[in-house]
This record gives sequence, structure tokens and C-alpha cells, in this order.
Amino acid sequence: MKIENYVRDIQGFPKEGILFKDITPLLINPEARTNCLQILVDSLKGQKIDKVVGAESRGFFFGMLLAQELNAGFVPLRKPKKLPFETISASYELEYGSDSLEMHTDAIQKGDRVLIHDDVLATGGTAKAVCELVEKLGGEIVQCNFLMELSFLNGREKIKNNPIFAAITY
Amino acid sequence: MKIENYVRDIQGFPKEGILFKDITPLLINPEARTNCLQILVDSLKGQKIDKVVGAESRGFFFGMLLAQELNAGFVPLRKPKKLPFETISASYELEYGSDSLEMHTDAIQKGDRVLIHDDVLATGGTAKAVCELVEKLGGEIVQCNFLMELSFLNGREKIKNNPIFAAITY
Repeated sequence: MKIENYVRDIQGFPKEGILFKDITPLLINPEARTNCLQILVDSLKGQKIDKVVGAESRGFFFGMLLAQELNAGFVPLRKPKKLPFETISASYELEYGSDSLEMHTDAIQKGDRVLIHDDVLATGGTAKAVCELVEKLGGEIVQCNFLMELSFLNGREKIKNNPIFAAITY
Repeated sequence: MKIENYVRDIQGFPKEGILFKDITPLLINPEARTNCLQILVDSLKGQKIDKVVGAESRGFFFGMLLAQELNAGFVPLRKPKKLPFETISASYELEYGSDSLEMHTDAIQKGDRVLIHDDVLATGGTAKAVCELVEKLGGEIVQCNFLMELSFLNGREKIKNNPIFAAITY
């Protein structure tokens, strides 16, 4: 079974000229989903993980499964004003303007071994912001892992100080 | 271990006068999280589930864990214009105005046995919209389940035709 077969190309979403990679077929198929989870877990080669960090909202899907499988805590990063407790924040560039992500200040303890997960590594802006937040609280980044890497966008350059793994590379 | 101890009260979020129930301590503690998952699974008493449906974005957390544990498909419902494939939509009332949720048209097959999951049952508006979407595609709702029910808001009245379970009731 090739997990690539469970990612669906949608032409022109969210706007003309973009080829969107739809992961809902991967979420809906238990066998493909489990396969993909196992690939992500195997990439860690048994390294201990204390916290899995996932960004709103597609990072929540496999982020939660990874946390459960690794017996680690799950830390959701969210868009501004969504997290209720005290937060720190990091901003990142978008095509037009910028956006930011927030993390609870009690989410990471100094020395925590952290796995960062998101669905796609594209330009790397989000991933870089996530790394900054984890490092600000003293977390040690074990790996940044992704379902997919759009390698032609060269996002890995922005987070090159960390081990990077993607289950699928385009 | 009482899972209630892993829900944190935040006074005045998102605005004055509201007591917010923060589930991030439950997500970050693997033991409490697994306990909570088991309570939700046990409530189904072994009934077969084909699809777990979770609403953006806090329904994604335990929704994904439930799908994985039950070997079922996971179907994310999202805010307008977030899902890339063909969708159907249902709207629900907010305190001021309304909002809506979308579901992919290929997410549910006629006769699918569906578990609906969300973090909180409050006024029941979102849950009712989710039920409508599942029924529109011919899904059979086995249960609506929630981490928490705010029973004083009487949301269960809006979805009373379905079995309802909440791991914690306030």
C-alpha cells in the first residue's frame, strides 16, 4: 500500500493556479492512516519524545495520533486568541501580510524532547515559527516531521538546524 | 484518576463573565488522555463504528484518537472554504449571527454507522448542524459523544433523537 495514493490532488484550490494536496482520503482510510502513522513513528528510530507539538488545525490530526502512539503529551499551537491560558507567540510571513501562532507558556518544560508535526512543509514559514516557540521555552527539538514536503518550495532551508522527515516528498 | 482534574477553569475567556473549560491539560497528560479515550470508547459498548465525525477544530483531538482506536474512518468538518473537494453545508446560530460547517460529499456512504464527537456540548447548535450533515448523506448516527456537557445550557434537547454521552457533566 502506497500512502501517496491516499492524497488527492485538487486543482485550483484555494485559488486558481494552486494544486492542493487533500489528505482527507488518508484520514478516512484506517489502514492507510495507520500505515502513515507507522512510517512517521519509525522515522524516530525509538528516540524518546516528551511532547508532540502540532499547529492548527491540520497538524492536529496526526499530531494527536503520534502523541498517543509515543505516549507523549500533545501541545496544540493555535491562531491568536484561541488559547485561553497565558501564551507566547511567533509570527510568520504569508504571501500577503503575516499571521501568528500561539503556544501556552506551560506547554513545554526546559529540556523536554519535542517532536514537531505538521501536515505539509511548504515554504517553511509556519515550521520556523513553531521551532521558535519550542526553543523559547527551552524545548529540545528531536525532529520536525511532516506528512508531505513540497520540496520545490525549499522550506527545509528555513529549519535546517533540525532533523527533518517527510513521509511523502513531492 | 479523575479526568475532571485535567480540565482547567479559565475565568473571563474568551470574554468577561465566561468560565472557559480548558482541555489542554488533558491533551498534554498521556495517562489522563488515555483514560478519557477509554471512557469514550467504553460508552459505545462494542458497537461497530464506520466513521468518526469531528468538528473544527477541538473535535479533531479526541475525534482522531477515537477513529484510530475504533479502526474507523475520520471525517473532519470544517469552517466554510477550508475543505477542498465538493461539500455540503449546515449553518447554526451563534450568540450574534450565525456560522456554518462543511463536510465533503464523499465522506459518508449511505448506511455508514457514525460516531459524532466534539469537545463540548453547550447550546447544541454545532452538534445539531453536524447531525444534519451526517443524515443528509444517509449516515446512521450511533452516538453523539463529548468530553464535556454543560448541562445547564440544555443543548441535549437539540439533538434528543440521538444517543448522547459525555465523559464529564457540569
